[in-house]
Amino acid sequence: MNQFSNENSALIEQTVDKETIKFHETLFTLSNGHIGIRGSLEESDLDWDYAENIGTYVNGYFEKAPIQYGEWAYGYAKNHQTICKLPNSHLISFSIDGEWFNLGTGTTTNHQRTLDLQQGLLIRTFTWESSNGKKVDARIERLVSYDFPELLLVSYQLTPLNFDGEIVFQNKVQRTLKEVADSDDPRVASGHGKQIATKAVDTKGLPMMLVSTLNSHLHIWCTAKAIVGMGRTTKQETTLQDEAIMTTTAFEAKAGKPIQLVVVAGYGDKFNEESKKEHFAEKLEQVIQEASRLGYEEIKHMHISNMANFWRGSDVQLAGDDQLQLGLRFNLFHLNQAAGRDGLTNIAAKGLTGDGYEGHYFWDTEMYMLPFFIYTQPNVARQLLSYRHSILPKARERARDLGVEQGALYAWRTIDGEECSAYYPAGTAQFHINADIAHGVKVYYEATQDADFMRKHGLEILIETARFWVTFGDFIPEKGNHFCLNGVTGPDEYTAIVNNNYYTNLMAKHNLLFAANMVNHYQEDLAFEGLSKRLNFDLQEVEKWQEAGNQMYLPYDEERKLTKQDDSFFDKAVWNFENTPREKYPLLLHYHPLTIYRYQVNKQADTVLAAFLYGEDFALEQKKRDYHYYEKITTHDSSLSHSVFGMMASEIGEKEKAYKYFMNTALMDLNDMQKNTKDGIHAANMGGTWMSLIYGFAGMKVVNNQLGFSPRIPEQWGKLSFQVYFHNQLIRIEMTHDVTEYRLLEGESLELFHQGGKLLLNTNHLVIIEN
Amino acid sequence: MNQFSNENSALIEQTVDKETIKFHETLFTLSNGHIGIRGSLEESDLDWDYAENIGTYVNGYFEKAPIQYGEWAYGYAKNHQTICKLPNSHLISFSIDGEWFNLGTGTTTNHQRTLDLQQGLLIRTFTWESSNGKKVDARIERLVSYDFPELLLVSYQLTPLNFDGEIVFQNKVQRTLKEVADSDDPRVASGHGKQIATKAVDTKGLPMMLVSTLNSHLHIWCTAKAIVGMGRTTKQETTLQDEAIMTTTAFEAKAGKPIQLVVVAGYGDKFNEESKKEHFAEKLEQVIQEASRLGYEEIKHMHISNMANFWRGSDVQLAGDDQLQLGLRFNLFHLNQAAGRDGLTNIAAKGLTGDGYEGHYFWDTEMYMLPFFIYTQPNVARQLLSYRHSILPKARERARDLGVEQGALYAWRTIDGEECSAYYPAGTAQFHINADIAHGVKVYYEATQDADFMRKHGLEILIETARFWVTFGDFIPEKGNHFCLNGVTGPDEYTAIVNNNYYTNLMAKHNLLFAANMVNHYQEDLAFEGLSKRLNFDLQEVEKWQEAGNQMYLPYDEERKLTKQDDSFFDKAVWNFENTPREKYPLLLHYHPLTIYRYQVNKQADTVLAAFLYGEDFALEQKKRDYHYYEKITTHDSSLSHSVFGMMASEIGEKEKAYKYFMNTALMDLNDMQKNTKDGIHAANMGGTWMSLIYGFAGMKVVNNQLGFSPRIPEQWGKLSFQVYFHNQLIRIEMTHDVTEYRLLEGESLELFHQGGKLLLNTNHLVIIEN
Repeated sequence: MNQFSNENSALIEQTVDKETIKFHETLFTLSNGHIGIRGSLEESDLDWDYAENIGTYVNGYFEKAPIQYGEWAYGYAKNHQTICKLPNSHLISFSIDGEWFNLGTGTTTNHQRTLDLQQGLLIRTFTWESSNGKKVDARIERLVSYDFPELLLVSYQLTPLNFDGEIVFQNKVQRTLKEVADSDDPRVASGHGKQIATKAVDTKGLPMMLVSTLNSHLHIWCTAKAIVGMGRTTKQETTLQDEAIMTTTAFEAKAGKPIQLVVVAGYGDKFNEESKKEHFAEKLEQVIQEASRLGYEEIKHMHISNMANFWRGSDVQLAGDDQLQLGLRFNLFHLNQAAGRDGLTNIAAKGLTGDGYEGHYFWDTEMYMLPFFIYTQPNVARQLLSYRHSILPKARERARDLGVEQGALYAWRTIDGEECSAYYPAGTAQFHINADIAHGVKVYYEATQDADFMRKHGLEILIETARFWVTFGDFIPEKGNHFCLNGVTGPDEYTAIVNNNYYTNLMAKHNLLFAANMVNHYQEDLAFEGLSKRLNFDLQEVEKWQEAGNQMYLPYDEERKLTKQDDSFFDKAVWNFENTPREKYPLLLHYHPLTIYRYQVNKQADTVLAAFLYGEDFALEQKKRDYHYYEKITTHDSSLSHSVFGMMASEIGEKEKAYKYFMNTALMDLNDMQKNTKDGIHAANMGGTWMSLIYGFAGMKVVNNQLGFSPRIPEQWGKLSFQVYFHNQLIRIEMTHDVTEYRLLEGESLELFHQGGKLLLNTNHLVIIEN
Repeated sequence: MNQFSNENSALIEQTVDKETIKFHETLFTLSNGHIGIRGSLEESDLDWDYAENIGTYVNGYFEKAPIQYGEWAYGYAKNHQTICKLPNSHLISFSIDGEWFNLGTGTTTNHQRTLDLQQGLLIRTFTWESSNGKKVDARIERLVSYDFPELLLVSYQLTPLNFDGEIVFQNKVQRTLKEVADSDDPRVASGHGKQIATKAVDTKGLPMMLVSTLNSHLHIWCTAKAIVGMGRTTKQETTLQDEAIMTTTAFEAKAGKPIQLVVVAGYGDKFNEESKKEHFAEKLEQVIQEASRLGYEEIKHMHISNMANFWRGSDVQLAGDDQLQLGLRFNLFHLNQAAGRDGLTNIAAKGLTGDGYEGHYFWDTEMYMLPFFIYTQPNVARQLLSYRHSILPKARERARDLGVEQGALYAWRTIDGEECSAYYPAGTAQFHINADIAHGVKVYYEATQDADFMRKHGLEILIETARFWVTFGDFIPEKGNHFCLNGVTGPDEYTAIVNNNYYTNLMAKHNLLFAANMVNHYQEDLAFEGLSKRLNFDLQEVEKWQEAGNQMYLPYDEERKLTKQDDSFFDKAVWNFENTPREKYPLLLHYHPLTIYRYQVNKQADTVLAAFLYGEDFALEQKKRDYHYYEKITTHDSSLSHSVFGMMASEIGEKEKAYKYFMNTALMDLNDMQKNTKDGIHAANMGGTWMSLIYGFAGMKVVNNQLGFSPRIPEQWGKLSFQVYFHNQLIRIEMTHDVTEYRLLEGESLELFHQGGKLLLNTNHLVIIEN
């Protein structure tokens, strides 16, 4: 299936193939956290017989539709939110003697597409011979800019090989009519959110299209300007229709002389007040004009240097497995592409590479992807957490919906903060998302000591989540008056609505205690007074948090000496794995929830995830017992599972298993292992890859605000090298089986732990130490 | 609000009132278990400003529509089924000088409607004066026949008071266009099932209408024939349209001489093979012709005598409270009307009086209504249970959907046997319905010893339900290797998906043991061999049933000395009743399920119901403790709750409470206490009334196949009298505070228990014994 050759940092496609065209579209997606363009061919709106799934997305731009329930109940999520397919602006083709190029016309040879991960470019080359024998060489480059988040640029360069004459380009801004079919599979987009209206207008000579959703009332401007890069044109004409902007550019071409059309396309910020239409149109126009002034080469230059900067901090090098090295880079490239950077958007489960999971944000961000950003691009991490702060008002409302009179409850899945989960037992009931987000704040703060963030955003998140837990839970006599959280669903979605899910309780405990800690730390702060007043906060609340946190009930089976996933987990029979044929996985597609819920069976890491995150709360022997027990009953039907089991395997010294788990997931999307990469990447799994390497194999830990490593890299690899930021200092780490080299690239000095022993790093001194 | 005067056995309405018109329509519904006609005015399709909810139903005639889920999962119920509103055939009005009568034209005086419970007639009388001063006296009688289940008859009699001249009647078979609005309230009909097509044809001179549903593919014939009862007609004409059959009959009337139009309307059996169209048309036609031949008076005579027969066996007399006496009779009248009698239909939650709960059958039948029929009309009880046998094939499929490879699982709510519950935690998860139906078989059999039923239907139900339980449950080491039923919802819908719901486990235990018992009893029987073969049944299965039954886990809290509703019930905090204002009830309309589920709070009797049904398994002191504990946390948000608490209150000697509970529910519909009787009666509550009297106050019990009574009638009443059939013998019982009189009306001799002591009854001997 995989027809890529690799050069460690580039994906190369030699053939366009019906079987894989949608899959490759996902892989070749270019994005910058604001816009995402699936890797479809430029001419693919023309009528040819490869059914692609063309998609252009803007992070956070969604349509909504009422959720239909067979039977309604109070407090149910009201609306679906679905990321929209916007008009595409990379639709370009050319004609010679009236014959339009596509892969079904004339003769195309040497067709190749390359996703250059290092430079962040999608490059396409081919030779086309028209039906009457006219030949051109083509080179098309596409980039989505990090410097100008609104912009997509396509450079379309043709060199006539055997003729002089006219070549006509046509480029369009237009919604494609090819739509994805609805599906019963809950992991696929639901087909809501198609209802968008477009209207093209000519503003100051730049034709633009206003896109508006009918129900969510979001507007966005989009446009494309065709610039002549090389060659002489005889005519350029732009026509406007409600549904399309179309530009025709005719070149007078000469054999051997390249001509180049550059399309500068832009998607502005979304807005919901129609009165601000002009403002946002002007803003986008300015960016387009600025980019036109700079020209393609200059923007490409900036882009490549930006990418180089990214790789400098974020690359992970792995000696001994080229295919894996490529896969890792591919993952990091896409992770980087997926992250919203404006503090108002986040990372969708599929990034901006497809409409799977409807473009929703989940707990995946904080638990699987945020660590990568915290340690390699802390400024992006801060923006991701700021998004959570921005949706606090909706989270407060949601807590009230759930009968909790204090604090905030984050939506399990959402775009704009409103709960969109239509199946509450595996949605809203996953209250742990509150603690997960607080955990994200904690990890970020421990790594960055970013007091400004804590004052402006972090504290409010911590206070409101802590308030939620103390109001939600109860001290239960039957449980020795410990603090209990009842009627919740943990990360494992094959067990629902239980009392005292271990993971949830442990995470909530740390949420409460960390919130108390931070409030105590910042209470003398000037800014705190305002916050306190606004939240009607009373310092006595902190005592309640501490009491609940310290008295948190953590279920444990004394007889089995196992951590209990929840109060009743061991009261159930173990799933009959022996009589479950392979084709019945994932179970959720073949068994009624009631069937799944009444057995001991895990979809994904749950207790093991808790033990991974708060390893210091567990003895090693306990971790081993828990790991071995839960591993036997886990199906890994969720792509979030392998990486956690892998990291825990590393931790307890199960080297072979750790390697196996890692290899099972590191190439998940590149090798289409779940057979659904066509719907978009598995962003959280990509984050899990990074975590597996850094937390798992490099054994990174932060304990008492100090960074430490315990290398345990697999025998299959020669060397693992990477960088992390910690307390504003950049450290380069290179690990072989025998030694580890530490070098402080930025910063003055840093004390860290290596295999438990202290180590002092000074600027640019190399420290080599045996493992 | 209640404007009825009463004569102990008739409801009289003096004014037609906008506020109550729909409520009265429900009360005045006439039905016979096959057809149900809401008590709307004959002319109410004419344009006047009282918004009625006209409805004509046929038991089991439904339309289906796919259930929309926000998020689908495997094994979910696929379709809604909704009882259809059929064309109405009681639509009649008359005109004088072209002016049509309704309550908005001319002047109507002395308008009165009477539901004569004793005779089973709805009688309407009034005087109408047309705008130009012509006066008529009207008397309209309506009956739905038990002798001819297909038939509704209306006798419309007019006497001109001050004129000679023409009076023109028009009667129609036509669907009214007034439809009920959709509602979010899960207890109201969903508005599905409106999609019916009608087509009128003239078969052998009798115009008939074929009604067909578009999705469930059910057909039914309906028709109406207008017969002249008294007076001379000048013209009669019938016109056919697709949507209507309309008959105009012109009378030459004389002052002081009554004229009478009799409408004989019929609704045949439903059928799903279009090829049988003619067959069913002929069948209905024959009934109509036969009825026409007999004439109204003869059919009315038969009907009244049929009703008298019903009351002879089923009446309950209560001295000391006339309003209550009327209410009781009203309840029994409607219960009797509601029951399907063809072995293929059952009792909908609202009978055939409205489309609330979409015309579905629930566990209500077996647990709340069946006892009344078992002890007063055992032949009807048998038909109701035969319906359950008829849907076994669908129940088997459903068990497979739920991953249970053996046995059958009855749908929680259904018309034709297919599961229609769109919210599985309070639907499909109520697996106890299996044991409830088996319990119905048990109670029926103990009371009737009907071996023919057991052979033909009962055994198969018992075997398939017992098979389900042994396959569904597991012996759990953590529970001392007792047999456990995990992931279930008990009757209390404010607690969902728990392990070892006490009620479910106890009922399943008796299901298993009774099935074993019956199989052992009947295994030598000739008929058993065929059944055994058909079900691929192995006698060794019985041992498994006995083992599971005897080892059934029954949760008990040793410290509190309380029966535990389920494994984790006491691990939750008690609902904060103090801070729950009155308007927040019923809780289900004001709190998210997750909020409700995480507290100790009951919607309805659950453990207390178990203790009531199997009182012999509980010590008296235990019953008292359980009753008092659960009473405090029960909201009675379900209409099924009060009667159970009342009966248990009787049993433990809480006389005042028993009386209060009873009075809270006995007049529920008559006094519109739940404010939703307009959507239909609460049939189960009506059954609960009978149970409260007979099981509760008369203390009826069957233990070891012997009938017994322990009278404990409230001080407010002088005497309670009723009849029961037991082992084919009819016993009349009259209880005062001091003594009880037993008389065997049918049968040779019967031994029974009175307050625990033995008593022998012989034919027509009166036995008087002190209480």
